[in-house]
Amino acid sequence: MAKRYVGIDLGGTNLKLGLVSADGEMMESLSVPTEAQGGPDHVLARMADGVRQLAKKAGIKVDDIAAVGVGVPGPLDSAAGLVYIAPNLPGWVNVPVRDTLQKALGKTVVVENDANAAAYGEFRVGAGRNVSSMFILTLGTGVGGGIIQDGRLLRGASDTGAELGHTIIQYGGRLCGCGNRGCLEAYASATAVVARFREQAAVSDLSRQPDLECKDVFDAADDGNKAAARIVAETAEYLAVGITSIIHALNPELVVLTGGMMGAGDVFLDAIRRHVGALAFPSAWKVCDVRWSTLGGDAGILGAALAAEAFDRTGQRA
Amino acid sequence: MAKRYVGIDLGGTNLKLGLVSADGEMMESLSVPTEAQGGPDHVLARMADGVRQLAKKAGIKVDDIAAVGVGVPGPLDSAAGLVYIAPNLPGWVNVPVRDTLQKALGKTVVVENDANAAAYGEFRVGAGRNVSSMFILTLGTGVGGGIIQDGRLLRGASDTGAELGHTIIQYGGRLCGCGNRGCLEAYASATAVVARFREQAAVSDLSRQPDLECKDVFDAADDGNKAAARIVAETAEYLAVGITSIIHALNPELVVLTGGMMGAGDVFLDAIRRHVGALAFPSAWKVCDVRWSTLGGDAGILGAALAAEAFDRTGQRA
Repeated sequence: MAKRYVGIDLGGTNLKLGLVSADGEMMESLSVPTEAQGGPDHVLARMADGVRQLAKKAGIKVDDIAAVGVGVPGPLDSAAGLVYIAPNLPGWVNVPVRDTLQKALGKTVVVENDANAAAYGEFRVGAGRNVSSMFILTLGTGVGGGIIQDGRLLRGASDTGAELGHTIIQYGGRLCGCGNRGCLEAYASATAVVARFREQAAVSDLSRQPDLECKDVFDAADDGNKAAARIVAETAEYLAVGITSIIHALNPELVVLTGGMMGAGDVFLDAIRRHVGALAFPSAWKVCDVRWSTLGGDAGILGAALAAEAFDRTGQRA
Repeated sequence: MAKRYVGIDLGGTNLKLGLVSADGEMMESLSVPTEAQGGPDHVLARMADGVRQLAKKAGIKVDDIAAVGVGVPGPLDSAAGLVYIAPNLPGWVNVPVRDTLQKALGKTVVVENDANAAAYGEFRVGAGRNVSSMFILTLGTGVGGGIIQDGRLLRGASDTGAELGHTIIQYGGRLCGCGNRGCLEAYASATAVVARFREQAAVSDLSRQPDLECKDVFDAADDGNKAAARIVAETAEYLAVGITSIIHALNPELVVLTGGMMGAGDVFLDAIRRHVGALAFPSAWKVCDVRWSTLGGDAGILGAALAAEAFDRTGQRA
């Protein structure tokens, strides 16, 4: 039987699991509440149980699974599969995800940062499947990053590489959640888009909505709201500034954007491309492109599963 | 006989050549005027002649040289050894450096960007000899960059990687030679230090000196000139901002600074370290350091020679 892998995307709200073939086909999937308030042991038990449920749903045994990959939302020692801290998961400090799951399931487990897992998924079977160097920006509450260099994840010397949301684009500028001023994340995350709109259009009915979301700002721009349109245009420009700095360092073949902002569509993407085209060195830009993710919300699951596949196949991390 | 290599650092004013052992010892060296006004063919003939002179000076035959490496100041196709353009060398457009020198000398020739060569030199036998990931910033007329990732040069998809001087730290800020506003180079090159001093201390005797150099500003700061001291302090801060963004992308083990600004010494270096320590993620900074080059002006020669050595030994580029 062809080998099959499980990818797990550990989110603060839901655990998403997928049974994935060696060539990256999603054969079966499952989403269960994380129940994060139960603490790390409870969540780890739910992850193991989710793998069993998924196997059952797919009509196979857990023993038929070759290896399991997990994408986690926080800094970690990826070689040891130890999560240092997960800000959105209560009690997650120094949690031995790999060892606990390996013991519970009797399977090889690999653990990756979630943005790295998404980057690896896009690289293997998504927008980047024809390139060997790329980076991803995940545009959500924050701005995450993942880098593929020569076909492998660039994790860095202490697993802190590809923190691309903390590229400083405007020193002394907007305050970022990390404590610095001027990070890309402080301008171009979904949260920052809403904050910038509220500041610039403080007197409008829309900006006063307490539950205003990034999507609402983009929708208002589409409907002709000039303040919203200006915020959207500036967001494309800020993203281009950060992307340009990273292109100047890495000279990659592709930049992949993902997250909720994908709903903004190709007009927004084209605006980003135009700005990068104006800012980046022509010799770098001529071999590069900026594209939306093709895997969307599945990138993390697929990437985690394929990181497990790579480790199972080569004995080396993805 | 142990293998020997030649490294050539092609500058606008001088050609610097070194005979280098396989383990990076400089056995003999030579500097001759580039005579750039003579055009590419003349300069290439001088390079070949320089190799012959160097061999003679060392008491060996050209045939005793295993391979030759050249560092060039401009964008190139490093795989083909073709220099697209060298801004400081008249007439240098699409110059086949590798093929021409190989024919003239009957030796394997490799060609690298000069900042990449310097980075490789520091990595092999300089400040970075104990690390596997680092980047260099060359602080001169501009700010050049070179990246070592997993023990190899990160050249990028079109040999335009590591243009670290064009990390945008202040979008919309100072105009850079590249046409963008806010690049690190526009704040922290030797040229930018002088320009910023002239602007901020416009009425002083020192700032009116027509031949004012970066070193004069640093010396004045040492002598208690407050305007100069402020410029020096801000330069450390700007460098730290750019370094932090690059650390957040690459999470390297080391940052090496080189160029004329090395004369500023350890007080300046410590100021940079303090700022990076305040800006960079603790998990990235705890495994990293910022140090001065240990090879200084020889880094490019040694790096070019050792790039030739690596190619000779492995059949793959450094």
